[in-house]
Amino acid sequence: MFKAPEHQVAGHQARDGKLGPLIDGSGRFYKPLQNDERGSKEVAFYTSFSSNTRIPDHIRRFFPVFHGTQLLEGADGCLHPHMVLEDLVSNRLHPSIIDIKIGSRTWYPQASEDYFQKCIKKDRETTSLSLGFRISGLQVYESEKSGFWKPDKKCTQSFTLKDVRSVLRKFVSSNPSSDAIPDCSFASVVYGGSTGILAQLLELKAWFEDQTIFHFYSCSVLMVYEKEEAMKGKPGAEVKLVDFAHVLEGKGIIDHNFLGGLCSLIKLVSEILTCPDEQTSNGCLHELEKSRFCLENGV
Amino acid sequence: MFKAPEHQVAGHQARDGKLGPLIDGSGRFYKPLQNDERGSKEVAFYTSFSSNTRIPDHIRRFFPVFHGTQLLEGADGCLHPHMVLEDLVSNRLHPSIIDIKIGSRTWYPQASEDYFQKCIKKDRETTSLSLGFRISGLQVYESEKSGFWKPDKKCTQSFTLKDVRSVLRKFVSSNPSSDAIPDCSFASVVYGGSTGILAQLLELKAWFEDQTIFHFYSCSVLMVYEKEEAMKGKPGAEVKLVDFAHVLEGKGIIDHNFLGGLCSLIKLVSEILTCPDEQTSNGCLHELEKSRFCLENGV
Repeated sequence: MFKAPEHQVAGHQARDGKLGPLIDGSGRFYKPLQNDERGSKEVAFYTSFSSNTRIPDHIRRFFPVFHGTQLLEGADGCLHPHMVLEDLVSNRLHPSIIDIKIGSRTWYPQASEDYFQKCIKKDRETTSLSLGFRISGLQVYESEKSGFWKPDKKCTQSFTLKDVRSVLRKFVSSNPSSDAIPDCSFASVVYGGSTGILAQLLELKAWFEDQTIFHFYSCSVLMVYEKEEAMKGKPGAEVKLVDFAHVLEGKGIIDHNFLGGLCSLIKLVSEILTCPDEQTSNGCLHELEKSRFCLENGV
Repeated sequence: MFKAPEHQVAGHQARDGKLGPLIDGSGRFYKPLQNDERGSKEVAFYTSFSSNTRIPDHIRRFFPVFHGTQLLEGADGCLHPHMVLEDLVSNRLHPSIIDIKIGSRTWYPQASEDYFQKCIKKDRETTSLSLGFRISGLQVYESEKSGFWKPDKKCTQSFTLKDVRSVLRKFVSSNPSSDAIPDCSFASVVYGGSTGILAQLLELKAWFEDQTIFHFYSCSVLMVYEKEEAMKGKPGAEVKLVDFAHVLEGKGIIDHNFLGGLCSLIKLVSEILTCPDEQTSNGCLHELEKSRFCLENGV
């Protein structure tokens, strides 16, 4: 009945005797609680979020539905606690998915010295610091024959600014695995439109400008669409938030770290809609060049 | 002809033989170039900004006018280079001023290890990290008899989150130096209205959501108003940006660090307009309490 999810692009997976997430094929995703406090923190978040009457419905839909916790038997024969969540891709055949960890900073003020050092190193090595987010994983469906384009972890971890720009184009292209210029065939139907990804990101942004309940560290925006639908010009792309093991109380302050990164992502997605035919996969280069100034020159 | 500016609330001042800024009484502010690269970096910024045709006029007015550089004789008898800038308060009699350094991070990706360590320490010790900005200095005019309420540097450096909320209320109150609850008498005329400070901050925000030309590290938002005008219900409060010794090229990425902090400031200023009669000087406490959840509880 339970099996490993087919379409996971980032996060923990079962291997080396470690528990991984499971799906039951009928719409539920079982995420094992991590042993340290992260597992209980994430359950605490889902519990408080689910019962919070101040989250508007149009925001709630960005979060996986939470069905409580459940003990499941692991390969070791022992019972392990799992969070029972909505399986976000159970209704998809060949979902193209990108997992984007938001925030230029993945550590929080009260973090231990060890955790701070570990996070800030990774934030500096990846695009988090410069761009306000980093790509944690992705798969883009190409065809029945060639399947998914799915760069491995080592590859996504070494993405540069230029790679990220390019990958956001490839994500909505029919030729993602090719070395050719991404054709951005599906940009307008996936990113654009009144219910497309950009519109959804802007809804989230408006909430983040105001909400002071939660601060989301190391949380990801997931963008999902189905190539078959996109080819028919059908909307249906979805934005979801996942990974809440490092959510803190907002204490009356907005989550400026998440908001800043989200705005940076919004800007790059907007540019793809404005210049889908860009030759360089490096943004609107002409505009960029015009706007650059040599600040190295002194008096 | 030259004298030290009366109304400086933060930044370098002449003392211990060091050069300080000067004003000429006819609208110009002379800022000595710092010896290290900061001076030349700031000149480079003003030079490129002044000649940049892509800065809209409604944004340009937030920046001091730049009149080039000039050599002035110091107390040591030597000639020293100065930036010649607009004196932002030359037309004010008793300006109330607050200097707010924007950004949860005052260091930038390419910073040296020393500079990084120095900045991150201060960001963590102050409200920069948690709030996305910190107050660098302020003066609030009270009356001819008692003059200005002007907390000293040591005091502003130790401001907590709660202090910052309170100070943003005191800034628009007729009783800033008192221990009584700030009366927020001038909140609606200074912060509110179609040309008030909130409206100006929102204009800046819209620009920062889009502009990818500059990244402003350690840059301050200055808010200025005149009590005499506010008492008559006259608008006239101004927002200005100052301190550009750490401006970097944006290279096609928005300044998510500045934008996040700016949004956090906007949220706090909005709350003062929504709840000017708050008894606690701690935001809308009832709303806050309602929105808090104990995330410490596990499974």
